[in-house]
Amino acid sequence: MTAIDTAVDERALATALEAIGPLDEDAMTATRADLDRLTKPPGSLGRLEDLAVLIAGITGRPDAPVERRRIVVAAGDHGVVRQGVSAYPSDVTAQMVANFVAGGAAVNVLAGAAGATVTVIDVGVATPIPAPRGDRPAGGRLVRARVRDGTHDITAGPAMTHDEAYRAIGVGLKVVDDLRAVDRVDLIGVGEMGIGNTTAASAIVAALTGEPVEAVTGRGTGIDDEALRRKVHAIERALEVNAPERGDPIGVLAGVGGLEIAALVGVIVGAAAARIPVLLDGFITAASALVGASLRPALAARLVASHRSVEPGNVIVLERLGLRPLLDLEMRLGEGTGAALAMGLIVSACRIRDEMATFESAAVSGPS
Amino acid sequence: MTAIDTAVDERALATALEAIGPLDEDAMTATRADLDRLTKPPGSLGRLEDLAVLIAGITGRPDAPVERRRIVVAAGDHGVVRQGVSAYPSDVTAQMVANFVAGGAAVNVLAGAAGATVTVIDVGVATPIPAPRGDRPAGGRLVRARVRDGTHDITAGPAMTHDEAYRAIGVGLKVVDDLRAVDRVDLIGVGEMGIGNTTAASAIVAALTGEPVEAVTGRGTGIDDEALRRKVHAIERALEVNAPERGDPIGVLAGVGGLEIAALVGVIVGAAAARIPVLLDGFITAASALVGASLRPALAARLVASHRSVEPGNVIVLERLGLRPLLDLEMRLGEGTGAALAMGLIVSACRIRDEMATFESAAVSGPS
Repeated sequence: MTAIDTAVDERALATALEAIGPLDEDAMTATRADLDRLTKPPGSLGRLEDLAVLIAGITGRPDAPVERRRIVVAAGDHGVVRQGVSAYPSDVTAQMVANFVAGGAAVNVLAGAAGATVTVIDVGVATPIPAPRGDRPAGGRLVRARVRDGTHDITAGPAMTHDEAYRAIGVGLKVVDDLRAVDRVDLIGVGEMGIGNTTAASAIVAALTGEPVEAVTGRGTGIDDEALRRKVHAIERALEVNAPERGDPIGVLAGVGGLEIAALVGVIVGAAAARIPVLLDGFITAASALVGASLRPALAARLVASHRSVEPGNVIVLERLGLRPLLDLEMRLGEGTGAALAMGLIVSACRIRDEMATFESAAVSGPS
Repeated sequence: MTAIDTAVDERALATALEAIGPLDEDAMTATRADLDRLTKPPGSLGRLEDLAVLIAGITGRPDAPVERRRIVVAAGDHGVVRQGVSAYPSDVTAQMVANFVAGGAAVNVLAGAAGATVTVIDVGVATPIPAPRGDRPAGGRLVRARVRDGTHDITAGPAMTHDEAYRAIGVGLKVVDDLRAVDRVDLIGVGEMGIGNTTAASAIVAALTGEPVEAVTGRGTGIDDEALRRKVHAIERALEVNAPERGDPIGVLAGVGGLEIAALVGVIVGAAAARIPVLLDGFITAASALVGASLRPALAARLVASHRSVEPGNVIVLERLGLRPLLDLEMRLGEGTGAALAMGLIVSACRIRDEMATFESAAVSGPS
């Protein structure tokens, strides 16, 4: 691509960010009133009712449909894996992308259970995607939009150039644009695949929040104490070498981030701009949301935190964004699995809104 | 009914209690091994994996189906409502039973979202069930098995006779027997409807645990401070007047309980005896489980705690039973709504078990 293309992506991001305003208070008030007419004590469904109200606030519609649901999984590789920060080799990223396409991964199963389909974006996998094995109905659609074959090792220099960061964000914006215009998707959950990406996410979060590296670094796919020490050390070196500045979120992303993390910034910002509710997954997607909210604070209110993951940095980011997770099932898989599970709660909340009888229609007495 | 009928119910309960043994460790070990072959880091789906393992332990089958799902809602009225302990009049119980049959209540909607159908048992409603309004596809099946028209006011004497308590338990056992033999149900969620029943449940829990009445008494459908004082006072009087003994769970149930609470003892014990996993709902169903576990401690391991409700007594009972709730969505509706929501998680857990690819089948590398 040329510099002109990158300028297009940069402008698309600016336009999307600008489109993100406050929640629609009128739609929220109307939904709250609708819910109070239903045959249940007011507010007795707790956060399920809050979800229906939030969906109205995001979409501006008290009757917002949630029929067409999609989990968008962005995939990319990380040069920092050579520092021994992960339990799995980089090859697994491409193998899992093939598994997403074949429909055999956890996110395919949980998306299927939530009535959602899966879109996989190869925005920066390092190796060729193997031929998918098998052909389950839950298989995902692959978008081939590789900006480069994985990031550079962030302990030695920037993960990617600013141009590449904008291009990866642009990929995410474009995918959402298609989901909106072509597939008319009502609800988006985000997920990711990238061996080494908790290292990049921890570096981003440390840089953007000022939290100590230890506080925002966990065991990812399940590393031991020694690998955890290597991981913390690698993140500290990456922050020294690249010296990312808190006030420059794109610089942080390019310096210590990842291509899939950048693409998810585009997906999240693009969906919020289009007033499509977005469910975050775990720590990586929270880091993408933090980059987006650092550029446009109003973004955070348009997001749903699906679950509290085991990664210690996840809750720290969610607190910064003012988001309370819906589920706490001690999950640490990523891929969008938490987003898919929580999607079922949003669907249930909207079915409550749409399908319950009112006190009047069911001839049920109110409080005495 | 005659005394002979009651003896039949008493024997049926004893037989069911005796059938409840420990979880099947072999089935659990096999399921854990199956899960570790799937394309995800071992244990990374957290409590979702634990759920699949628990289902194997309860059913004795690593491939236990969860296709046929039912929410069983028991309904009864409470004489203690005359003491001003509830925000709603007793008429609402019968009106809501009609609403369950018509398909307009929250439990119908959430059961539908979980792919479950609803069975409603009128085991002790005080007034005639009105004709259902409307005819939604999610409408429940009504079992007419009224033991008596509501309980007596527990502040003045026992809620019911021992015979009536056994008969109500027998109704629950019989319903499960039909669900098992005729409908071949794989998974049961329990729920309840009964204006005033948090008062009875608090009295049961105080009697069986020795906890102070204030600690196990909450606002139910949403009463104010003054009504809450009346409710605590009514429970204290009920415990004085009936003097239920901790070592006599059936005496506690008959003295300060409810007909729907007794029927749910039958449903829960019967399902556990038949190795059908049971999802509890909120506080009332937890009180029923506590009565059952007081009779047979092994019962508790065969139950799933679906959610942490707002009622303060709920968590106290779940802790006594050694159960950790899956969800915490600040719900306080009852009806089986929490059980229906959590049922979706069990289905997802079993789909993970059944539908994911293995590392071998998907050609994904293991840890490096």
